[in-house]
Amino acid sequence: MESQLQELKNHLYEVADLSSAVSVLSWDQATYMPPGGAEGRGRAIATLSKVAHDKFTNPAIGRLLDALRSYEESLPYDHDDAALIRVTRRDYEKEVNVPGDLVGRIAEHTTRLYDEWTRARPANDFSAVADGLEKELDLYRELANCFPGYQHIADPLIGFSDYGMSAESIRAVFAKLRGELVPIVSAITSQTPADDSALYKHFPEAEQIAFGEAIIKDYGYDFERGRQDKTHHPFMVRFGHGDIRITTRYREDYFADGLFSTLHEAGHALYEQGTSAAYDGTPLGGGTSTGTHESQSRTWENLVGRSRAFWGHYYPKARAAFPDQLKDVPLETFYRAINVVKPSLIRVDADEVTYNLHVMIRFDLELQLLEGSLAVRDLPEVWNNRYQSDLGITPPDDKDGILQDVHWYSGTIGYFQGYTLGNLMGAQFYAAALKAHPEITDQIGRGEFATLRGWLTENIYQHGSKFTADELLNQVTGSGLSTEPWIAYIRSKYSEIYQL
Amino acid sequence: MESQLQELKNHLYEVADLSSAVSVLSWDQATYMPPGGAEGRGRAIATLSKVAHDKFTNPAIGRLLDALRSYEESLPYDHDDAALIRVTRRDYEKEVNVPGDLVGRIAEHTTRLYDEWTRARPANDFSAVADGLEKELDLYRELANCFPGYQHIADPLIGFSDYGMSAESIRAVFAKLRGELVPIVSAITSQTPADDSALYKHFPEAEQIAFGEAIIKDYGYDFERGRQDKTHHPFMVRFGHGDIRITTRYREDYFADGLFSTLHEAGHALYEQGTSAAYDGTPLGGGTSTGTHESQSRTWENLVGRSRAFWGHYYPKARAAFPDQLKDVPLETFYRAINVVKPSLIRVDADEVTYNLHVMIRFDLELQLLEGSLAVRDLPEVWNNRYQSDLGITPPDDKDGILQDVHWYSGTIGYFQGYTLGNLMGAQFYAAALKAHPEITDQIGRGEFATLRGWLTENIYQHGSKFTADELLNQVTGSGLSTEPWIAYIRSKYSEIYQL
Repeated sequence: MESQLQELKNHLYEVADLSSAVSVLSWDQATYMPPGGAEGRGRAIATLSKVAHDKFTNPAIGRLLDALRSYEESLPYDHDDAALIRVTRRDYEKEVNVPGDLVGRIAEHTTRLYDEWTRARPANDFSAVADGLEKELDLYRELANCFPGYQHIADPLIGFSDYGMSAESIRAVFAKLRGELVPIVSAITSQTPADDSALYKHFPEAEQIAFGEAIIKDYGYDFERGRQDKTHHPFMVRFGHGDIRITTRYREDYFADGLFSTLHEAGHALYEQGTSAAYDGTPLGGGTSTGTHESQSRTWENLVGRSRAFWGHYYPKARAAFPDQLKDVPLETFYRAINVVKPSLIRVDADEVTYNLHVMIRFDLELQLLEGSLAVRDLPEVWNNRYQSDLGITPPDDKDGILQDVHWYSGTIGYFQGYTLGNLMGAQFYAAALKAHPEITDQIGRGEFATLRGWLTENIYQHGSKFTADELLNQVTGSGLSTEPWIAYIRSKYSEIYQL
Repeated sequence: MESQLQELKNHLYEVADLSSAVSVLSWDQATYMPPGGAEGRGRAIATLSKVAHDKFTNPAIGRLLDALRSYEESLPYDHDDAALIRVTRRDYEKEVNVPGDLVGRIAEHTTRLYDEWTRARPANDFSAVADGLEKELDLYRELANCFPGYQHIADPLIGFSDYGMSAESIRAVFAKLRGELVPIVSAITSQTPADDSALYKHFPEAEQIAFGEAIIKDYGYDFERGRQDKTHHPFMVRFGHGDIRITTRYREDYFADGLFSTLHEAGHALYEQGTSAAYDGTPLGGGTSTGTHESQSRTWENLVGRSRAFWGHYYPKARAAFPDQLKDVPLETFYRAINVVKPSLIRVDADEVTYNLHVMIRFDLELQLLEGSLAVRDLPEVWNNRYQSDLGITPPDDKDGILQDVHWYSGTIGYFQGYTLGNLMGAQFYAAALKAHPEITDQIGRGEFATLRGWLTENIYQHGSKFTADELLNQVTGSGLSTEPWIAYIRSKYSEIYQL
């Protein structure tokens, strides 16, 4: 058994090396690559993706998985070897259904479309990416159709991101959440919003970078095993256990964009950096689902990074870094500014309360696009109408409307639900952490995060993909996905600022 | 034939994509990768190198090359298709002799050793890389032994870099050159060296970058298809026709290091950027040999970049960029400072006259190391002795001695001769360019480089690897490798500064 397991791992390491290379190529594309590199890069990413796919769908892996089944069944469910065999089989059975040719076509198309998006967004030109988006949807329908028997065509794609979820199950959760959330949003937005003008001053980029990086060092982000660079749309990427990078962007006229992007991506990175080194190079290395990942980015961005305790410690430091900009801004004003609730256009800049409304719009439209009940050419108008009906505002242009996020232009289809699932799960995990360690809030107030990070590492991070999101939730919180902890958190936090 | 040629190209494109990815991984390792990434990166580079090798040695390529032989023979020698088949066959026959396992072991070992060198050099600790160097030599002997029948064990390795050359042929050229060069060096170094103190002031990095990048833009380096980043040891790297990058390093206490590194690497890049786009993704894409490549880097660094005409135009700009540092330095003093001839420790900073002595030391020691007549443990002492006997100085430490260059610690074995071959070839090509366009010198004096670059592109760059170095020399200059144009250039230039 041992030699077969080692043989399996050797196959997996090779696939991981190829996938890691794809990640480096993509990171470079999003950070430093000159414009002339786009065409060749698209081809290289496509080739490597296809080679990785071919290597992973090697029938030898299928035979090894079969041969290892009795060993797997002899082990406890949570044994590392059992988990490796189980999760590899799940991924393998998924990949063997997808032709290598399709993998290559998707990679090449999405790489080109990403490049087009980086130019279309500043040019406010949806027409420059409309055909590409149409073709991308065709490719993803083709991908979904490699998994017949679905209830909704989005289900296979959703399952890749959030294993165990489906259009139906997410619609049910979202419907419940919407019912609880809309009255809160209405109550808050009928009141005068907090004054957030303090955030709209000139904040030089270099000082923003230094301020944000100092905080994420305190969080425990290890710069020996990572780095931060600038990009169009922030992301975290894992090349391997020793190299987990984040990216961010800055606006010198608005303080919150760069800072909270940094805290958000650092949350993803803490998850990855906390994964067991022993899982590196296997399907167990890396976070288990989009929702679980997002639960951690949102925890470090919001539950920690927008909390009163946090700013009790960091606001004096912010004032030292930006003395002119903040000298006349009391802590309470700043705290309310970074937690201002008002309908807005840009999801990543949205406040915690309205954020999930953005996600629900996107989720609904994505389902319609995949079904074919919404045509790409109608998308900007439908998008704008939904923003008007759900958030009461209409984007003045596509740049801050349909073009705002990179996802649909970079092959991230079937992914958006994870943002809201992450908010819900994050609140569930955080409530469990506070229950186990009520001292965490006071520690945050001293800029100390070791207890929280330690608890998250022990209960979530170290496990990588060993457990599914649902398994983790049940193990750690004693229940499955629930809207209650998040709603309770929102009520508690915002009733202190607004009449609720 | 057409479908077989296309099939061959499709194989080659796949290999090129994998090789391009290896280059991106290596570039990242040398520029931005955090320390924690080293181990995983070594593994990934090894895996991709091995996969690229396996793909290129696919017997299907051999069969296609056989099938295309009659087509090749029906074409003129310089037809693109004939050249593609010919050069691919040459590379294929080389690669099929090397086991994929060895390719992977070399890639992994050299990637790790490079990482160790980046720490050993600042720590002045040769012992930290000695075992790694020993193992690397073993690996390269194993590689050379894949090609039995050589006269000297270095010959196969030299042939990879400078096709058609051997230890014997290079020793003959170097002996002739040394005979002509040593009296010139002696004559110059017996005189008072020029005052180069103007270069040893504080030159802020940001201004150095801006100044250097403005010049290479004038040269014609296309930043839309490239970029410049900082590294430990400057290099140029081609990812594909649209993305050809250079790297450099700066010393704020010495002006010449960063600037001439930039001009040097830009020379390499102009060659690559000038290669025909049609050759991209095939063995024809990219410069034909180390010597040919170095001929271009040295041309743009020295023949152009250290010329009197050049500084007639750029010195006023240098003074504008560094007014305090250069206000009391007349042009003539600056010109003599950047052309100062004095024995020195660091090859890349060496003046044009003594530079080749550095290369000859390295070439001799490399042959001895490969033969086994020199042990790695004795290398620092032997190195220092050779510097004393050949250049009259002894390195005070290994940092600026045996550890100064990355090459031996990154798998660049059998490569050093190219630096001197490049000087010789560069002077041959440049003399031919001046003969065709005597106006080039005056144009350089106006910061205009289009005629020179155009001539080099037409005669050398566009051809990529279509012709061997020897073929290029004969076509372009009417003779093979010769020491005379370089010696004539050195005599002419330096007799104006020193008594010769």
